[in-house]
Amino acid sequence: MARIFNFSAGPATLPFSVIQQIQEEMADYRGEGMSLIEMSHRSKTFDALTVEAEARIRRLMGFSDDYQTLFLQGGATGQFAAVALNLGRSGGTADYVDTGSWSAKAIKEADKLNVPVRTIASSKETTYNHIPKFEWADDASYLHITSNNTIYGTQFQDFPDTGNVPLVADMSSDFYCKRFDPNKFALVYAGAQKNAGPSGVTMVIIRKDLLERCKDDIPTILNYKIYAEKNSLYNTPNTFGIYGVNLVMKWIEDQGGVDAVEKNNRDKAGILYDKLDSSDFFTPHATEDSRSLMNVTWRLPNEDLEKAFIAEALKHDLSGLKGHRSVGGIRASIYNAMPKEGVEALVDFMGEFERKNG
Amino acid sequence: MARIFNFSAGPATLPFSVIQQIQEEMADYRGEGMSLIEMSHRSKTFDALTVEAEARIRRLMGFSDDYQTLFLQGGATGQFAAVALNLGRSGGTADYVDTGSWSAKAIKEADKLNVPVRTIASSKETTYNHIPKFEWADDASYLHITSNNTIYGTQFQDFPDTGNVPLVADMSSDFYCKRFDPNKFALVYAGAQKNAGPSGVTMVIIRKDLLERCKDDIPTILNYKIYAEKNSLYNTPNTFGIYGVNLVMKWIEDQGGVDAVEKNNRDKAGILYDKLDSSDFFTPHATEDSRSLMNVTWRLPNEDLEKAFIAEALKHDLSGLKGHRSVGGIRASIYNAMPKEGVEALVDFMGEFERKNG
Repeated sequence: MARIFNFSAGPATLPFSVIQQIQEEMADYRGEGMSLIEMSHRSKTFDALTVEAEARIRRLMGFSDDYQTLFLQGGATGQFAAVALNLGRSGGTADYVDTGSWSAKAIKEADKLNVPVRTIASSKETTYNHIPKFEWADDASYLHITSNNTIYGTQFQDFPDTGNVPLVADMSSDFYCKRFDPNKFALVYAGAQKNAGPSGVTMVIIRKDLLERCKDDIPTILNYKIYAEKNSLYNTPNTFGIYGVNLVMKWIEDQGGVDAVEKNNRDKAGILYDKLDSSDFFTPHATEDSRSLMNVTWRLPNEDLEKAFIAEALKHDLSGLKGHRSVGGIRASIYNAMPKEGVEALVDFMGEFERKNG
Repeated sequence: MARIFNFSAGPATLPFSVIQQIQEEMADYRGEGMSLIEMSHRSKTFDALTVEAEARIRRLMGFSDDYQTLFLQGGATGQFAAVALNLGRSGGTADYVDTGSWSAKAIKEADKLNVPVRTIASSKETTYNHIPKFEWADDASYLHITSNNTIYGTQFQDFPDTGNVPLVADMSSDFYCKRFDPNKFALVYAGAQKNAGPSGVTMVIIRKDLLERCKDDIPTILNYKIYAEKNSLYNTPNTFGIYGVNLVMKWIEDQGGVDAVEKNNRDKAGILYDKLDSSDFFTPHATEDSRSLMNVTWRLPNEDLEKAFIAEALKHDLSGLKGHRSVGGIRASIYNAMPKEGVEALVDFMGEFERKNG
């Protein structure tokens, strides 16, 4: 059928030009007589692809050579353990800001692994509808934040200067959606499947001096130092995933870089939030000062109307709008690759639905 | 260019019909208006795909409902830690048979994670050219074997009955290349990228009673119990990888099942070993009683000839024949998907090369 607008939270819509390129190159990768997915990760071609992707990711946001991009597996769930085990066993407590279910899981994981953890702020009592204020300890082993909260539709609007305390961010759901100062961060990680590529590959951008903290007594698969030394090729990586991420990052470049993508994201989110703000029928979940550019969440007057909204939307080729089971309601994920036309079609439909049912 | 014969050890050649199907379905997965790689892992379509793949993998080899297939990430390297941490902390020592570099890594990993380990046999002194005899302890927490050794070209010809001691096998390089008795095994694991699909997805077939051994104090990403309870969807899996594995398993079914694939593999390996045995120019590495159906390794009279062989082969569209850096020489990986014509072309070339240089 015709391509629909897919508002899923992740895996999520990808640039159609990237999908088409993957399709074109699938059977014979650039004249090599085999598919990319059949190609040795030790081949010159794939090695060059990894080197290209590693540098492109840093270049797009201005990360210097003091940083290195790693391509790992296991998603944010793997990183919850990796961050704690690599960085959390020297210095004081590992300080966490609790801004949603995934933050809470990160905290629980570090605690389970006997890393001293402190939750320095939480918005749990208001169903995580905002990013709370927070202060960290000067001797914290690191400060961990979740920059965007997919389920609740909140996002950090700016990032703190943490001085000597390493700032660690899970950016799985807003990776490269807007400009940020890379020098504020010691480590950024993101599962690719929301804003950067296919699922099954996890990007870690780590400041290299942190590698000295990594001890050898943890599972190899979680050891940053080993993967950094081997340029992500200690064992077989998700080759298709790295290929896909590289294409999506190239697509960002082709759009004009992160700034161009950010402008488009602000336009798209603006259209949708304007609609929510101009109606009493739709009630946004996130407070205005914490709204996400990536995931927009709202409620309708009752659950029956929400069910009808989702079902009716699907008939208009607008899919993936059901809110996460833990909060209900509606969620529209409008990642980098969601075209403005998709958001406009959604807003049109919302108007129509309100007129009929409001 | 035309499709070449790819003898890489992994990622490796896949059935071309599978590659073609992936290509056809890439832009619009079965009329859903989006690519499979854009689809939520919580969608009905993907959930059904996971259920189908889980059952198909068990059915193909006759694993009963007492077992469950998990789709994880991180390859064998991840499983070295997972097996040790989930199963190795109760009972006696974890007993390992050391048949190659990957076995040695598995042993080192368990030891690093403070699991009591015992190497009960090793063929290291003869450059791992055979599968040694071994005896395990009656109270071992498990017995770990590497069923096929990619680098050295050796393979277990049969599997022991270990009674109450759980038999664990790393089958990354010979997964479903031949019939075996599933009831002998407590746990089988395999990275998909050699014989079962794209890289970045790891299959674990576990007997469910073992899940009771899994404790909660280990990284979630390595916890079998959590992933079993969530049918592999605790967090976002490698969706493309699971899709690819399912297609390759379907292809095995379409070939007539594991027995048909095994017959073809024995034919292919027979052709190649006959060539090696009938020539003084080529010297096989593995002893006759331990020869692998999947990876065939041999030497030429000197390294210059080996280099020339590899370079010349490439001109005949025979790629990936360089032996692993740790042993040198030549390696031909002839996984399930390598057509008989590929092996015949290789053997023809070997004859030609010997006539010129022998």
